[in-house]
Amino acid sequence: MIVQEDLRVQTRGRGTVNLTPQIEALVAASGAQQGLCNVFIAHTSASLMICENADPQVRTDLEAFMRRLVPDGDPLFVHVTEGPDDMPAHVRSILTQHEVTVPIRDGCCALGAWQGIYLWEHRLQAQRRRVTVTVYTD
Amino acid sequence: MIVQEDLRVQTRGRGTVNLTPQIEALVAASGAQQGLCNVFIAHTSASLMICENADPQVRTDLEAFMRRLVPDGDPLFVHVTEGPDDMPAHVRSILTQHEVTVPIRDGCCALGAWQGIYLWEHRLQAQRRRVTVTVYTD
Amino acid sequence: MIVQEDLRVQTRGRGTVNLTPQIEALVAASGAQQGLCNVFIAHTSASLMICENADPQVRTDLEAFMRRLVPDGDPLFVHVTEGPDDMPAHVRSILTQHEVTVPIRDGCCALGAWQGIYLWEHRLQAQRRRVTVTVYTD
Repeated sequence: MIVQEDLRVQTRGRGTVNLTPQIEALVAASGAQQGLCNVFIAHTSASLMICENADPQVRTDLEAFMRRLVPDGDPLFVHVTEGPDDMPAHVRSILTQHEVTVPIRDGCCALGAWQGIYLWEHRLQAQRRRVTVTVYTD
Repeated sequence: MIVQEDLRVQTRGRGTVNLTPQIEALVAASGAQQGLCNVFIAHTSASLMICENADPQVRTDLEAFMRRLVPDGDPLFVHVTEGPDDMPAHVRSILTQHEVTVPIRDGCCALGAWQGIYLWEHRLQAQRRRVTVTVYTD
Repeated sequence: MIVQEDLRVQTRGRGTVNLTPQIEALVAASGAQQGLCNVFIAHTSASLMICENADPQVRTDLEAFMRRLVPDGDPLFVHVTEGPDDMPAHVRSILTQHEVTVPIRDGCCALGAWQGIYLWEHRLQAQRRRVTVTVYTD
């Protein structure tokens, strides 16, 4: 059995959005007890990550790390059509994930106690993003 | 229902190969309307990525970024058996993906408008690569 | 058909643990001939990677690369509650994988000849880690 639905996520520009509650709600609604849940983001300048969910500073530090590793306005980049954050957003996406597949057990995602599934917006401006959730069960 | 097939991809040395048309053809041939498509590369010095598909400069800039982050001939590396691009190829693979799982909807991969699935050859010389595509549907 | 089981992995502190034999044993026990095997780690300071399995120096070089890219005690980081390796462990996890999904063919994982599935412990101290393996077959 497959259940597939889209989440529409409005971001506030660069930063993270916790998708875990919405994903868990879709899994619960599917009735799946055991299986897999695939989460896919249909963009190339925003990405997904499984991240620590307790201390928001972890995500602030991740952002600081990425900003240093892939600085906006880096003269290395030629593709700058949409501004200094355009190409860095693509690089950040490549270094993280466009999809994660997590186990379902006892009717919910079998995440670790400290794990959440986050959308990471890499563009400076707010964007509307599409995330497709596919639940697989037997 | 599961359909599984291999793609054999001849690379031209370091650079990207767009696998999207071949993957879409396998999905179409499978008859799957809704499900998941897993794409897996059976190597450790080439990888997969979901990348912007409109401006080839994005992939040129990604290559420039990786060349700077993981320079060939870096004296840090001890494993140099197959040359100065040997260990950097492993590192680049680790920083990107060996597999991506994308949703299938209405008989094709539910990619974003600007997304393509690319093989990224990290070795300088041309190689023959195996990519396994597995289609899951109900 | 879905079979799902947990592996409990005792690490010895920072470094890699080859999970391939245990994963292959679970796949064999499941009786699956063709399908997919999802491997998921339920932590945010340890991760998974598909890596070269022949020369252990490759993993030593990967460790050296990560140590340079994400140095312990980096003054950039504010989240240092659990020590100088706390935040670097989260960053390393984000740059690698929390899950890999690999094809099953002829009753075993269709990995490349030089591929293994490794747990990468990023904390300096030994930890007990949970890895969930889900086998999907038709």
